[in-house]
Amino acid sequence: METTVYLGKVQSFAQGRWHTPQGKGRTVYHAVTGEPIAEISSEGLDFKGMLEYARTVGGPKLRQMTFHERARMLKALALYLNEHKAELYELSRATGATKQDAWLDIDGGIGTFFVYASKGRRELPDERFLLDGDPERISRGGTFLGHHLLVPLEGVAVHINAFNFPCWGMLEKLAPTFLAGMPAIVKPASVTAYVAERVVRLMLESGLLPEGALQLICGSVGDLFDHLTGQDVVTFTGSAETGLRLKSHPTILRESVRFNMEADSLNFSMLGPDVTPDMPEFELFVNEVVREMTIKTGQRCTAIRRTLVPADRVDAVLEALSNRLRQVVVGDPANERVQMGPLVSRDQVAEVQARLEALAAAGEIVWGSRNGFEIVDADPERGAFFPPTLLYCARPFEHTAPHEVEAFGPVNTVMPYHDLEEAVRLARMGRGSLVGSLVTADPDVARTVVLGTAPYHGRLLVLDRTCARENTGHGSPLPHLVHGGPGRAGGGEEMGGIRGLYRYMQRTALQGSPDMLTAITNEWMPGASRPEADIHPFRKYFDELRIGETYTTARRTVTEADIVNFAGISGDFFYAHMDDLAARESELFQGRVAHGYFVLSAAAGLFVDPRPGPVLANYGLENLRFTKPVKPGDTIQAKLTVKQKIPREARKGERPSGVVRWHVDVTNQDDELVATYDILTLVARRPEPEA
Amino acid sequence: METTVYLGKVQSFAQGRWHTPQGKGRTVYHAVTGEPIAEISSEGLDFKGMLEYARTVGGPKLRQMTFHERARMLKALALYLNEHKAELYELSRATGATKQDAWLDIDGGIGTFFVYASKGRRELPDERFLLDGDPERISRGGTFLGHHLLVPLEGVAVHINAFNFPCWGMLEKLAPTFLAGMPAIVKPASVTAYVAERVVRLMLESGLLPEGALQLICGSVGDLFDHLTGQDVVTFTGSAETGLRLKSHPTILRESVRFNMEADSLNFSMLGPDVTPDMPEFELFVNEVVREMTIKTGQRCTAIRRTLVPADRVDAVLEALSNRLRQVVVGDPANERVQMGPLVSRDQVAEVQARLEALAAAGEIVWGSRNGFEIVDADPERGAFFPPTLLYCARPFEHTAPHEVEAFGPVNTVMPYHDLEEAVRLARMGRGSLVGSLVTADPDVARTVVLGTAPYHGRLLVLDRTCARENTGHGSPLPHLVHGGPGRAGGGEEMGGIRGLYRYMQRTALQGSPDMLTAITNEWMPGASRPEADIHPFRKYFDELRIGETYTTARRTVTEADIVNFAGISGDFFYAHMDDLAARESELFQGRVAHGYFVLSAAAGLFVDPRPGPVLANYGLENLRFTKPVKPGDTIQAKLTVKQKIPREARKGERPSGVVRWHVDVTNQDDELVATYDILTLVARRPEPEA
Repeated sequence: METTVYLGKVQSFAQGRWHTPQGKGRTVYHAVTGEPIAEISSEGLDFKGMLEYARTVGGPKLRQMTFHERARMLKALALYLNEHKAELYELSRATGATKQDAWLDIDGGIGTFFVYASKGRRELPDERFLLDGDPERISRGGTFLGHHLLVPLEGVAVHINAFNFPCWGMLEKLAPTFLAGMPAIVKPASVTAYVAERVVRLMLESGLLPEGALQLICGSVGDLFDHLTGQDVVTFTGSAETGLRLKSHPTILRESVRFNMEADSLNFSMLGPDVTPDMPEFELFVNEVVREMTIKTGQRCTAIRRTLVPADRVDAVLEALSNRLRQVVVGDPANERVQMGPLVSRDQVAEVQARLEALAAAGEIVWGSRNGFEIVDADPERGAFFPPTLLYCARPFEHTAPHEVEAFGPVNTVMPYHDLEEAVRLARMGRGSLVGSLVTADPDVARTVVLGTAPYHGRLLVLDRTCARENTGHGSPLPHLVHGGPGRAGGGEEMGGIRGLYRYMQRTALQGSPDMLTAITNEWMPGASRPEADIHPFRKYFDELRIGETYTTARRTVTEADIVNFAGISGDFFYAHMDDLAARESELFQGRVAHGYFVLSAAAGLFVDPRPGPVLANYGLENLRFTKPVKPGDTIQAKLTVKQKIPREARKGERPSGVVRWHVDVTNQDDELVATYDILTLVARRPEPEA
Repeated sequence: METTVYLGKVQSFAQGRWHTPQGKGRTVYHAVTGEPIAEISSEGLDFKGMLEYARTVGGPKLRQMTFHERARMLKALALYLNEHKAELYELSRATGATKQDAWLDIDGGIGTFFVYASKGRRELPDERFLLDGDPERISRGGTFLGHHLLVPLEGVAVHINAFNFPCWGMLEKLAPTFLAGMPAIVKPASVTAYVAERVVRLMLESGLLPEGALQLICGSVGDLFDHLTGQDVVTFTGSAETGLRLKSHPTILRESVRFNMEADSLNFSMLGPDVTPDMPEFELFVNEVVREMTIKTGQRCTAIRRTLVPADRVDAVLEALSNRLRQVVVGDPANERVQMGPLVSRDQVAEVQARLEALAAAGEIVWGSRNGFEIVDADPERGAFFPPTLLYCARPFEHTAPHEVEAFGPVNTVMPYHDLEEAVRLARMGRGSLVGSLVTADPDVARTVVLGTAPYHGRLLVLDRTCARENTGHGSPLPHLVHGGPGRAGGGEEMGGIRGLYRYMQRTALQGSPDMLTAITNEWMPGASRPEADIHPFRKYFDELRIGETYTTARRTVTEADIVNFAGISGDFFYAHMDDLAARESELFQGRVAHGYFVLSAAAGLFVDPRPGPVLANYGLENLRFTKPVKPGDTIQAKLTVKQKIPREARKGERPSGVVRWHVDVTNQDDELVATYDILTLVARRPEPEA
């Protein structure tokens, strides 16, 4: 049995300083021993001052950084936290977390930083704003163009987190916030705030964050909401009641403050009608349900609460689940045998018990009893222990409690369905959930269930033997995918890769001439000027190339000989090129035409500069359209324009270079476009002058 | 002078029937003559029944249609309305609209349907759901994949509109709603509801809408809000006060009902510091300000309210504006000389006057007086006339009324700025606007102002001589671009092309094996099975090809002769291919390599089937990456997989066909990927058997 360390008053971090609360505050207790572990209070904080500080110090500093700089910062923070995670694991035990629970919280949180760091560098430009989508042609002549910009909001992101994942819950919100360029104020749930405090302390100690980027409130948010504006963002994870109270705040409503809510929901898991007990999917299903009931002692907003099973497989499922639950060792997570720790507090025990009673009235308890379950290495009277509890509701269309009441603990209700239509109907009765899962080997079942339940779910997992080994589980949100759900789940959306940044940015439609839009966005827009380069642009270093700079090639007359030779070399004897009779009969070609790839190759021949030079390689091509056939006798010419320049970090030992995207138009003798595309080249940076 | 037709009780359309209100309701008046024109009341409607009807009848019918079917429906509706627009123009005059105002309202609304119809067919698949973004690799081995689906919400879109554009305001919301697959209930502002009613009547008469897709409430929405759920969407355009009241409704908050608000805002227009009175931009600016003051008598949520001018050009601007305003003819729009009609009602006259007084206290009235302005063909005592009124506020940082008070009429305040930093600061003082505009010929000014004001604006227009002719004006939202703004403007977002559909759809993250995701989405996913085709897939009709079906080609050894011959034909003598010494020195290549375009061409030679057949043409190529150089002696092979099938409407006389996207991987003798790309082909549909 571990000895509890009393942490005393947990500090907040405000306006650049650690702040010790006045007064004693709320006492929070060790989940296993029930002993006091810390005092939480935000008394004495200047909440308005914290907002101002973030807006005037942190915001400007973050906005000065580019996306790549912010991404590198996230990576460095993740590495720093990784080095110091042992102390976080240590501390997590007091919250009742097993090693596995702590891994989800700590490594899961750090992993989110890593994923955003990587996506930031791979998917975002090295700029301070984003372009969203493609330019929109909004005029016939092309002199007036539209596009969309995304810029960081100039307020503060206020993140209000739940108690269950004090590290992950904070970091999954901070990753897109910081990458977008917004400062944050974090308010963890009091009962586990001491873990969040330690994570914040580590991040600040690392010296990697710009001043003002991150502040911490342990305790209540005081009058902070009164001072919010339309440039701020509030995110909330927690109970529907608290969320409702926060989003109803008059300032949130009056100032149109963005509010993102993520509430616990009545997530389903379904055993497909095709799955029989002898199939590997049956065991996958049983494992998943048990795992989701016991991970973090069921205190997970994504946990399975409703288990939908074909009516004729209810007995088999209940038996398999009971057998597995019988083996779950509950107790002090310090003991390595323990698979499930206590709830976070004794208050939660009372809460879960009350909800369980409401659920039990709608069915029967199949497994689990508060009396007489074994607890390893802990005093049942002091720790916040609760047994894994399985219910069965035989008539889930009449007894609707399982679709309405959530026991935020290791509690789950099994229900029968008679056909797929009924199964889908039951799944939707959660009235909006974060996640649903389906275990099936039948793609038709998967399609029906996914399309039938998608409107009510933020995430859907289809599990079968082929992804069994690599699947990340029903309950685990991933940084690449959106997390959040409609209706009861709060209607919010977090993460989802780069999408997650949009919540912290303003999308602005931009209208103007192509030249003006080019100047503003640093990207050549269709219709903008194409000034002829003074020397061949392939002789210029990355740094010397200017957006819009253009090379107009010599011309080349395409002949039958070209077509014949090209067919010989490529082996492409398609009739449109080689069979005069068939080509003449074709509506589309009305005679022999040159190979599209010949046009591409000849254009390259026209614009290439053969000598070694700054252009290191053409490594890609995009958006190619052959817009008009090229016939023998046609004379083609290409125009090559610098469309976009993307700086690139050099890997060790690599020659420093950047990506240049060139727009190419190939025209014929009548100035008609025959092909249009972008090519991607690697272009060397100008060497630094020797010192 | 026209004779007013008294329209009597305006009907609502509920649960498939036209409904005449019980009781007399609210009388609304002709804006020019002041005579009663109609009675508006929703008394007797079953609001809960309307919601149920839309959910159970309209929603399922719309969701059965594909995006292309819905797009064609929008186009047909637009054509139908176009044929019947004369009566709408006629009716609009009673609202005070000039022909130009009515054009914005009626043709603008119909145009929105046309744009969405076209975008729906060009940018969306012919499916009932959308894929959002790219697949996400969420496992190392690739057996577990993520993607995002968008499906229509299964509730109702409730659209609450403003009085100023009864046609456009309704149609710009209905276009993305219907295209997304959601039914709608429309509630127009009472004072011009008779125009909206006529538009709805026409759409219903056309017989083009599925039953239950559209209902209309003229009058109050009664207890409708009490019955909303998280599957419903409410949009609101109008005053901040009404919007605040609606979005504070307990059901909206409790059920996480999506609420999109678009409130009037204090939009700015700025004359760039570079623009002198002799430049064409000066006149553009003056024209734009006058146009925005007078169009729809300034009753436009996007109208210019704040005009920012370099301090040393204030006199020139005020003089030019006054001279232009002097020429504006106000009166009955039935008279063709009239350029500006009345406000919508005498209530609005009182309202605008009250706001004007608040504004005048912060500055001075430079032009416009309610006493003694000339009104053509109307009785000033009965019509709702208001003169164009220009104010000047000399100290806009101290006297802040112009940044806070909106007079929703032909009222505008000019303010001076001393440098660009000050100009940007003033622009942002609107605390969130729908739109801002800048007239400048200097790209640096444009970049500074755009990036400085974007966080506070939903749309920014940069106007100069080059786009002067084609520009659509400061005040005109376009279906291609987002419309809405942060903070004071309500924090909403409408239209913006396909983005506009997302508001009516649920985004769901989908996880599973590549095969499962392929089966669900009908698109081949990386890592999914590639069963070998029984016959060459280029011999199969569009209808016969199956997603995932794969053709593995013969192999080809690439030799020095290929490189030399290809250089000769293409003219591409780049050193990496042709100069053994330089190629060997190159870090990247370390010896001669084949042309990338040769690899592409040889792969085509390997997979092409030369005889005439169902594959009509290869018209495009996307996402090409050359992943590894091919050297003389390497042996390459290609794999061609059916990735996606996109049905296509045949144009008249054209052979029916569809687009097939093939994924191509080219590998070398060591099974290493050397090139990967998608090709786009046109493939014929299977001919119908002769009758």
